[in-house]
Amino acid sequence: MTAPSLSRRGLDAPASPIRRLTPYADQARARGVTVHHLNIGQPDLATVQPMLAAYRSYDESVVAYSPSEGYLAYRTALAEHYNGLDAARGGGPITPSQILVTVGGSEALLFAIAAACDVGDQILVAEPYYTNYRGFSHLLGVEVVPVSTHARESFAVPAERVRAAITPKTRAFIIPSPGNPTGMVLSAADLAALGEVCVQAGIFFVVDEVYREFVYPDEPPAAGAPVPRAPSVLAVPGLADHAVMIDSVSKRYSACGARVGCLVTRNAALYSACLRFAQARLSPPTVDQHAALAALRTPPADMRAMVDEYRARRDLIVAGLNAIPGVSCPTPTGAFYLITDLPVADAEDFCIFMLRDFDLGGETVMMAPAEGFYATPGLGKNQVRIAYVLGRDRLARCLEILRAGLDAYNRAAR
Amino acid sequence: MTAPSLSRRGLDAPASPIRRLTPYADQARARGVTVHHLNIGQPDLATVQPMLAAYRSYDESVVAYSPSEGYLAYRTALAEHYNGLDAARGGGPITPSQILVTVGGSEALLFAIAAACDVGDQILVAEPYYTNYRGFSHLLGVEVVPVSTHARESFAVPAERVRAAITPKTRAFIIPSPGNPTGMVLSAADLAALGEVCVQAGIFFVVDEVYREFVYPDEPPAAGAPVPRAPSVLAVPGLADHAVMIDSVSKRYSACGARVGCLVTRNAALYSACLRFAQARLSPPTVDQHAALAALRTPPADMRAMVDEYRARRDLIVAGLNAIPGVSCPTPTGAFYLITDLPVADAEDFCIFMLRDFDLGGETVMMAPAEGFYATPGLGKNQVRIAYVLGRDRLARCLEILRAGLDAYNRAAR
Ligand SMILES: Cc1ncc(COP(=O)(O)O)c(C=O)c1O
Ligand SMILES: Cc1ncc(COP(=O)(O)O)c(C=O)c1O
Repeated sequence: MTAPSLSRRGLDAPASPIRRLTPYADQARARGVTVHHLNIGQPDLATVQPMLAAYRSYDESVVAYSPSEGYLAYRTALAEHYNGLDAARGGGPITPSQILVTVGGSEALLFAIAAACDVGDQILVAEPYYTNYRGFSHLLGVEVVPVSTHARESFAVPAERVRAAITPKTRAFIIPSPGNPTGMVLSAADLAALGEVCVQAGIFFVVDEVYREFVYPDEPPAAGAPVPRAPSVLAVPGLADHAVMIDSVSKRYSACGARVGCLVTRNAALYSACLRFAQARLSPPTVDQHAALAALRTPPADMRAMVDEYRARRDLIVAGLNAIPGVSCPTPTGAFYLITDLPVADAEDFCIFMLRDFDLGGETVMMAPAEGFYATPGLGKNQVRIAYVLGRDRLARCLEILRAGLDAYNRAAR
Repeated sequence: MTAPSLSRRGLDAPASPIRRLTPYADQARARGVTVHHLNIGQPDLATVQPMLAAYRSYDESVVAYSPSEGYLAYRTALAEHYNGLDAARGGGPITPSQILVTVGGSEALLFAIAAACDVGDQILVAEPYYTNYRGFSHLLGVEVVPVSTHARESFAVPAERVRAAITPKTRAFIIPSPGNPTGMVLSAADLAALGEVCVQAGIFFVVDEVYREFVYPDEPPAAGAPVPRAPSVLAVPGLADHAVMIDSVSKRYSACGARVGCLVTRNAALYSACLRFAQARLSPPTVDQHAALAALRTPPADMRAMVDEYRARRDLIVAGLNAIPGVSCPTPTGAFYLITDLPVADAEDFCIFMLRDFDLGGETVMMAPAEGFYATPGLGKNQVRIAYVLGRDRLARCLEILRAGLDAYNRAAR
């Protein structure tokens, strides 16, 4: 008797591009080399205090299922939060019944794609893109179609380029802002222009706003001022039927392991479909929802300190990268990622070299080759994605290691 | 501009059958009537102490993503736990790399179906069935095909009936044991016979064992003896390539809101596909995994007390139901559900009557009409599912209310 065969869906499921080099990192560690991880979006900063306190003071005796749509108290507090951020401008105040609590932003994305797309339909993304959009689409039999954006244009997303890529099978345009992996931030005008394209094409406009607070305007806010925020699709007028906002506590509160996110939409039919998907999986996590509710009480000064820290890191790493001969890195204005060119022909080969063949005083860096973030073959071959989720001292050291590594690699190649 | 259209997948997503009558329950409450919920599988018993203690003593400063496959420490402890339960007999000891930690048993089911089935493929289930199998299948474009089982046969699942239902499109047979909604428990011989059918047909055999400890053998174990357990598919020889075991902390430890489950398989290809699905959603919940690890240290006496309580409830409710004129209820030997015939032509109409038109001293009961648990139209029309997740005093009161309600309903109909 032979083993049963897997589905094509299972056989062809994409592996995460940021994990492909893990075996080389394991080898490096086995050689006694310290590996600095610039490849993953796991912040080093402490989870906000109100969340940690909420776990520690959980006092129910039964950790019961929550409603499939999430606790009303949490959805009510979220609605207030979004309305405080000007969401109401986009078509009246957000209500709790427009918010579906999900298992991270990840599940919200899965539900949105499923509610918009049947098998064989397409979603549009701006490449380089958050590759798990492909993972969810693959699971659902949906095709990912890329609109290319470019480092030389600071990864701007021109509405006309999006319009030109829409086909009769396109059901949604999905984009993170602030962006992963590019750090690009859509302005209110960008959102309006892209939204108009979606309205005209009759497709959903899904904006993934999990990095909303992580923006670094040219003029930093005055000391003590609240954190600025990336404009939200919820505040754009005229998109009530089309806009879907994806959110998560993962990055904002440094609580990636809480697995609490949400989907927000004024489109009642889309909400109803997502709710039925949510009923099948019963409940988002219960204790973590209590912690997520508490997170909304994070002191503004603590949020500000977190954002200031990321801004300082961005300044340090962008300056440091551009100071390396042959490196050209645009300045990202949000999130905690950047895509940079390196003076190598094959960034993946170089990243493997750094792990397998190189160290500087027993240390090396792990980066994510950027090719995996493009859907168009051949793009991003000389680029890497770097997540600045390490302290400034370690980032400075990473820059030294990278500079020395490039030197050694290019000398060896000559 | 019109709203974008939803996918058929979204439009047709099934609503949960146990929630369909919720608006009537809300009406009852609005009239001031107390509603006893026998319709949902949310245990009233306290979450086991080691889990509650683990939440309260969580002391990491960053609630970080866990590995996509779950923490190694947790997977190692689970492997030990399963091997202690005789899993090794089924093809050598279970190793941590055969265990994928998931967001509840729910996500493990989704991944298993996705890895086995492409769009248009079929899964076989024994009806009445756990209807979320259909929810997950629907999301993935997979068809659910039922094998009927019957109250008059104590919901036995004859292997020949399963064999006869297999088509060229069948990719897996999925069954819970102990069962929801029937309380039926598969013996080791049943598992072997059904497994052989799956091996011969070249399909996966997915056994959902989330109620493993909740079994009530004719001879109750001696005082102080450990809890008996339903036989596990992992212990059946010859199924290494075919067996997939689904597990969860939800019911066993009364921790439904923790959202921690797992998938266990010796089939490395299936594991690899599920791991890639898991990478797209990043991580199962982190703090909850710590709690789930702690749950494995639950004192045997506490597990025993929980199972003894369910057994006593089962005895009370089955005897009470069969004492009502015209009611015929087989004795379930596991889980905490039962399916019973009622002396009515239309159980849904009766359940609505109980909520909308009836109360006994200001109290009524909510049950789940069983028709929703059958895939074959017309079956289960005079049946309800009851979950005995209330204390014995309340269950006794529910029996009085039900008896009086049947009386009133049938008098009104005459
Ligand atoms: C752009 C973007 N969207 C969504 C997510 C999903 O995160 P989570 O599921 O933890 O909320 C991430 C995580 O890295 C992300 O970068
Ligand atoms: C048979 C069966 N399988 C799986 C589950 C899923 O539970 P969870 O996702 O909470 O582990 C349930 C919950 O009721 C169930 O009854």
